[in-house]
Amino acid sequence: MTRSNDTIEVLNYSAGTLTYLDQTCLPSEVRYRVARTPDELVDALRRLAIRGAPLIGVAAAYGIASAARNASRMDLHAFRVYMLEVCDRIGGARPTAVNLGWAVGICRELVLRCSDPSACASALEETARRIHEDDARRCAAIGEQGAELIPPSAGIITYCNTGALATGGEGTALGVILAAHRRGKRIHVFVCETRPHLQGSRLTMWELTRRGIPATLITDGTAAVVMREGRADLVITGADRIAQNGDTANKIGTYALAVAAHHHGIPFYIAAPVSSIDFQATSGGEIPIEIRPASDITEFGGVRIAPEGVDAFAPAFDTTPAALIHAVITERGIIRPPYDETLRGLRS
Amino acid sequence: MTRSNDTIEVLNYSAGTLTYLDQTCLPSEVRYRVARTPDELVDALRRLAIRGAPLIGVAAAYGIASAARNASRMDLHAFRVYMLEVCDRIGGARPTAVNLGWAVGICRELVLRCSDPSACASALEETARRIHEDDARRCAAIGEQGAELIPPSAGIITYCNTGALATGGEGTALGVILAAHRRGKRIHVFVCETRPHLQGSRLTMWELTRRGIPATLITDGTAAVVMREGRADLVITGADRIAQNGDTANKIGTYALAVAAHHHGIPFYIAAPVSSIDFQATSGGEIPIEIRPASDITEFGGVRIAPEGVDAFAPAFDTTPAALIHAVITERGIIRPPYDETLRGLRS
Repeated sequence: MTRSNDTIEVLNYSAGTLTYLDQTCLPSEVRYRVARTPDELVDALRRLAIRGAPLIGVAAAYGIASAARNASRMDLHAFRVYMLEVCDRIGGARPTAVNLGWAVGICRELVLRCSDPSACASALEETARRIHEDDARRCAAIGEQGAELIPPSAGIITYCNTGALATGGEGTALGVILAAHRRGKRIHVFVCETRPHLQGSRLTMWELTRRGIPATLITDGTAAVVMREGRADLVITGADRIAQNGDTANKIGTYALAVAAHHHGIPFYIAAPVSSIDFQATSGGEIPIEIRPASDITEFGGVRIAPEGVDAFAPAFDTTPAALIHAVITERGIIRPPYDETLRGLRS
Repeated sequence: MTRSNDTIEVLNYSAGTLTYLDQTCLPSEVRYRVARTPDELVDALRRLAIRGAPLIGVAAAYGIASAARNASRMDLHAFRVYMLEVCDRIGGARPTAVNLGWAVGICRELVLRCSDPSACASALEETARRIHEDDARRCAAIGEQGAELIPPSAGIITYCNTGALATGGEGTALGVILAAHRRGKRIHVFVCETRPHLQGSRLTMWELTRRGIPATLITDGTAAVVMREGRADLVITGADRIAQNGDTANKIGTYALAVAAHHHGIPFYIAAPVSSIDFQATSGGEIPIEIRPASDITEFGGVRIAPEGVDAFAPAFDTTPAALIHAVITERGIIRPPYDETLRGLRS
C-alpha cells in the first residue's frame, strides 16, 4: 500500500474495511492488518499499533464508519443503540489525546440524528474521510507556519513520533521539520528514542531516513548534552492535549526535555492542530493522564528487563507547563503567550 | 557463590583464577564466568559484564594479579615486559572511570620494582585484595557519611547502578541509601531505568528488591515528573570521575537529571570515593568521555530497534557541572562548594 518511496499509507478505508499499518512491527517490518470489529480497533489503539493523537482521531472515525457500514441492515432502533455503544467503546480506548473524544463526538452526533442506517453509514464514511483529509491539510498548514520559526541552519531536537505515522497527513512537529527541509534549510534532527515504546528510534528515524533528512538518534537522557554542546537551536514536539492556559500534555519525557531547553535558553515549541486544544480544560491539572501497565517498562519485546514483581510508575504522558513553551504552532498561526488570551482566540 | 540472601559476591579471586558475576545476564540469570586471560577481562569490561567505576578498578587489580600468577615462571625480564603490556591492555579497556587508571597505576609500580616474578605475583595479589577491601571500607564510610543527609522520611531518585554490583563493597550512592534504610529512615527510591544498558532496572532494582527497600522503577524521562509531583526530596548518583573543580562525569543521563533537580530546587548529590577524584583534571572539559558504538542504542538484546545504518550519538557518560552539585559524599566527609578549595583538601 506504499504510494511512493517517501509516502506511506498508514490507514486505508474501503467498503467497510479498515486496514492499518501495525506500527509495533516497525522498523523491521511493514505489516498491514485489518480491524474487523470495534474491539479489534480498540485493541490496535491500546497496544499502540495505531498511535499519535491526530491519527487516533482519524482511525476512530473510520472504525465507527466501518461498524456502521457492517451494521447498516439493522433496524433503526437497534442500529442507534449499537452505534452509540460502539462510539463509547472506541471513545474509551485511550484517555489523554483530545482528538479521540473530538472525532467520536462528531460521529456520535450523526448517530443521534440518524433516521436511516444505510444513509448514516454513508454520512459517517464521508465524515471519516473529511476528518482524514482535514487533518492532512492541517498538517500542511502547520508545516508552513512552523517552517518560519526554523533558522536557515538549525539543529533540532524532537521527541516521539509526530509524522505521517501519527497524523492524517505529513505530521505536526515532523511536518514543520519536513517543510523546513523542503525550503532548503540546512537542518539536522536529533531524535530522542522516546522510552518506553521507542517511537523516536523505531518510527521517527524511519520516516526521516526515508525522506533523506539528516538525523541522529540519541537516548532521551542525551538531549541535555546535545543542548549543552550547542548543537541544538530549538526543540519541537507534538501534543496530545493542550489546556486553555497553554499547559500541554504530550508523551512522557516531554516535560524533562522542556526543562532542559529552558535551562539552556533554547526555544521549546509545540506543533499541534487546533483540534488538540481542550477548551474545557482551564489548566494542565485537568488533563487525564493515562497510566500504562508496569510491563511497559519492566519488559522489552516480551523479555523481562527488571526483576519480577517490582513496582513501576509508567505514565504514558506528562504535562509541560505553559511557562516553558515558547509558542504553539497551529494550522491557524503561531500562538504565543499569554496563552489564556491567545488560545481562546482560536475557539470557533 | 552467593553468601547470603542480601549479599552477592561479584568478584572472586583464588589461586590465579578470577571469577566474575556476568552482569549482562541480570536480572534473569545469576551467571558466573572466569576471566582466564587479560584479554578475557578486557572483553568482560568492554561488554559491561563487569562495570561500575570502583569495581572496574578492583577487577583490573585482580586481573593483573591473575596474569602475574600465571606468568610467574617466566624469567625476570620477560615477566616485566609481559606484565607492563598486561597493565597497558587492561588499563586501556575503558577510558572514563578514573579508578581503572588509578588501580593499574599501583600495580604497574609493583611490576616496575619487581625483582622476583613469584614474589611480585604475591605482592600483586595482596594489593588487589587490599584495593578490594579498602573499597568495601570506603563504601561503608560513604554510606555512614551520606546517611546524615537523608531526611527521616524521603523520596530519593537514583540513577544507574552504584551498589554491590558496581563497587568492592555495598556501593556509593546505593551505599548511602542502604545506610539510611538501616538507620530506620522511611525511604522510597525512584530508580531511573538508565538507558541504554538499563543498569537501573536490571541491577539497582534487583539489589533493592533483595534488600527489601521500597523502590519504584521509572523511565529516565519520568524523573522530572516525580520531582514536579513533590515525590522526590533529593537525587543521589555515583561518579566515574570528578575533576578538581567538582565537575563530575557519570553515566549518560546524569546531567539531565541534575538540570531537572536544579529546576525543581531539589538537592543533587554525588557519592564517590576519593579515588574517583582526578586531581590532574582541573575541570570537566578535561575528562575523556567514552563514545559507545551506535549499536548500543540501535539494537536491544540483539534486536534492531532503529532502521539499519542510521546515525547515532551514544556517549557512555556526561559531565555535570559543579554548580549543579550540592555536595560530594566521600569516605572522608561531605564535601561542599567551593570545590576548587574543598576537594583540593582531600589530596593526600
